[in-house]
Amino acid sequence: MPRNLTRDLLERGRDRQLRLAVTGLSRAGKTAFLTSLIDQLRHAGLEARLDLLPAAREGRLLGARRVEQQDLGVPRFPFDRALAALDADPPQWPEPTRGISELRLSIRYRPGRPGWIGGDTRRLTLDLFDYPGEWLLDLPLLEHDFASWCRAQRFDGERAALFADWQREVADLDPAQEVDEARLAELAERYAEGLRAAREAGFSDLQPGRFLLPGELEGAPVLQFFPLPGLDEADPAVLAQLPPESLYATLARRFRHYQQHIVKPFYRDHFRRFDRQIVLVDVLGALNAGPERFEDLSRALTRLMQSFDYGRRSLLSRLFAPRIDRLAIAATKADHVTPEQHPRLTGLLQSLLAEPLKDLRFADVPVRALSLAAIRATEAREVDHRGQRQPVLRGTTLEGEDTLLFPGEVPATLPDASFWRRQGFTFTAFRPRPRDGGALPHIRLDAALEWLIGDKLT
Amino acid sequence: MPRNLTRDLLERGRDRQLRLAVTGLSRAGKTAFLTSLIDQLRHAGLEARLDLLPAAREGRLLGARRVEQQDLGVPRFPFDRALAALDADPPQWPEPTRGISELRLSIRYRPGRPGWIGGDTRRLTLDLFDYPGEWLLDLPLLEHDFASWCRAQRFDGERAALFADWQREVADLDPAQEVDEARLAELAERYAEGLRAAREAGFSDLQPGRFLLPGELEGAPVLQFFPLPGLDEADPAVLAQLPPESLYATLARRFRHYQQHIVKPFYRDHFRRFDRQIVLVDVLGALNAGPERFEDLSRALTRLMQSFDYGRRSLLSRLFAPRIDRLAIAATKADHVTPEQHPRLTGLLQSLLAEPLKDLRFADVPVRALSLAAIRATEAREVDHRGQRQPVLRGTTLEGEDTLLFPGEVPATLPDASFWRRQGFTFTAFRPRPRDGGALPHIRLDAALEWLIGDKLT
Repeated sequence: MPRNLTRDLLERGRDRQLRLAVTGLSRAGKTAFLTSLIDQLRHAGLEARLDLLPAAREGRLLGARRVEQQDLGVPRFPFDRALAALDADPPQWPEPTRGISELRLSIRYRPGRPGWIGGDTRRLTLDLFDYPGEWLLDLPLLEHDFASWCRAQRFDGERAALFADWQREVADLDPAQEVDEARLAELAERYAEGLRAAREAGFSDLQPGRFLLPGELEGAPVLQFFPLPGLDEADPAVLAQLPPESLYATLARRFRHYQQHIVKPFYRDHFRRFDRQIVLVDVLGALNAGPERFEDLSRALTRLMQSFDYGRRSLLSRLFAPRIDRLAIAATKADHVTPEQHPRLTGLLQSLLAEPLKDLRFADVPVRALSLAAIRATEAREVDHRGQRQPVLRGTTLEGEDTLLFPGEVPATLPDASFWRRQGFTFTAFRPRPRDGGALPHIRLDAALEWLIGDKLT
Repeated sequence: MPRNLTRDLLERGRDRQLRLAVTGLSRAGKTAFLTSLIDQLRHAGLEARLDLLPAAREGRLLGARRVEQQDLGVPRFPFDRALAALDADPPQWPEPTRGISELRLSIRYRPGRPGWIGGDTRRLTLDLFDYPGEWLLDLPLLEHDFASWCRAQRFDGERAALFADWQREVADLDPAQEVDEARLAELAERYAEGLRAAREAGFSDLQPGRFLLPGELEGAPVLQFFPLPGLDEADPAVLAQLPPESLYATLARRFRHYQQHIVKPFYRDHFRRFDRQIVLVDVLGALNAGPERFEDLSRALTRLMQSFDYGRRSLLSRLFAPRIDRLAIAATKADHVTPEQHPRLTGLLQSLLAEPLKDLRFADVPVRALSLAAIRATEAREVDHRGQRQPVLRGTTLEGEDTLLFPGEVPATLPDASFWRRQGFTFTAFRPRPRDGGALPHIRLDAALEWLIGDKLT
């Protein structure tokens, strides 16, 4: 028997499996991305719109169906609910991610490599995961003890105003004082209010991340701590010897509980089992929100990307030995700018992530950057403008107004002061278009798919 | 040194601790009970209204304050939020229990026993827990495998209509068919809708209990199963050999996951550590809802009480070795009937629980039955009625109407057909009265406290 055939027969018997995770900070477009990805694969073989995915282009992608996921205790990704939102009148964007969810697809395909002579098909089991990028912002928290974490927190610039109520109340706290349980809960709630206000105001670099999406832990002491100010001058030895009922010891205990029972379990039970990962970034939204938020997004992403830095020195590698072997980073909502801006959007994303990308290359993690629209809500047109062809977008605003506009030029690298002075960019949010029966319209979702799963479909 | 003194000194050094849990089916009044209990103890030594608790009556109860609970990952009982609701204008009942919560009180008291000669005080650490009684309805599920559980489910009487949609869709399912993941989720949602409709309609005997309060498990496959009809004639050996992708095997797998990862952890991590327990029952509400719901409550309570039957044969003892050494059962909302009806209310409760009480006595678990109002919302008055003194209640309805009424006679034992024909009882829900600054007004909450913690304050 020829060697190729033997290998093929062996591979045919073996089920291939891939665990692909989608993340990003809130409003980055995670739900839209996964919804469209599943929709495309389910339409495979019929009306899929996946020209950049060779298996689809060559007609080798035969179909995909949902099968039972492995972990029965994790919510299933609400694909049907997302489609129902898109099919509402008027169409609506699906509800945002609130925690981890998963969905398993069984994909049928025909191998495309030259040595293949069998008529049989193969199966790829694709486990899809969706989780809040905010959870990854908590990784650095594992490198701290409570005192050093307190010292690392900064409340300056616009943040100062958002945290002013809380700061006023904690300014004079004595770390040694006996804790008043009810008062501590109040102060922690003030701090959480500050975090929520900061998120509303467009800030991204916020922690502890779980304070913003407490779920069933709402009201649990583990989510009731905050950085104690004024520890810079404190003697660590004195702090360490404060009695267990003291304010300092109580807050430190909760901080440790948060590390052990909130941060670590996510990495241990989920993260380290992902094979591939895509990180979505709403670059345009940040561009629209002004220099301070843009700077903040950059800081948050740098922090978030540490979870993918498998360098030898990395905390993550030491603790969890993760195994992601391919990473994609994508600027989403590319349909919100005109097509000739797309390369600039990708360039801007790369500038924004320059530092983490350098670390990742050093650590030999293959990364690809791209811009995409998971569910395209606009059409690109051209109009005459003073005798020139001017590219514009046609779409329907969230308020239901049909509109034709040129949102502006995306800076191809990090914007400088003059960009912000000109306020060169006006972001308009569009409503999704009614579905036409085929797969959802998108921009370069297939390019992302090719990078993330293409090699498993050969 | 005299012996008594030695013992006292020893005991003084030792922190006493007691774990007291409150449960009951939804709307039984758990939140009001715990709120009032905490409020009374916090007022101890000042304006407490606890004449039936000797430690308070004798002025030995010095105070209570909230301290940090042991398990930082369990939500704290929302006492402040409950008080805020009572202080709203108009006053409102606190939000109901949705999961487990806890709160720790440190109680200071002076021992009252004759041998006591020290001037010192002692401390009792009281851990209070609140959890949905619906969780206990799942205990019997541990005695089943999936097939026997399916056979045990009945959908007759008024329930038939509530589950009609679901029953129509599952009637012709073939246990051997390959499962369609999306379709299964739909059918499970139909079943959960039936459970929710049944609860809305006043039924209590509903399982699996966690389907009604899914929390973070919303959408997880472990909450997506249902009893498969028509298994009565099926051959167990044939069922057991169906392939893993079959409908039957898939449902059975989820049922087992529910047993192992939902039902057991509650008993293992929480229930078996409770020292004392009070079960609250809204007997009056059930009396008002008619014979079928009353019968259903009786069935649900019988099932719920199995969690307290520590007889040698009991599943619970074998699995979890719980240690509850005192149990109270209380008919709540006693302020919704006139005072001379209270003994009848207690009698009715005892009739309702006759079977489980018999088992408990046999198993030597000390139980006390009583009627109480955790937060008294009415005043008892007398009016002239055809020359006779007629007891009445004065209160404000939920709609804000001041009213004076006689709700009717409570049957002292299980009501017979003639009672239901007469419709002898009209239940009116009252709004709480504005707080007067002292502890919350109540009826016999102190009697419950005496039974549940009194012996620890001597």
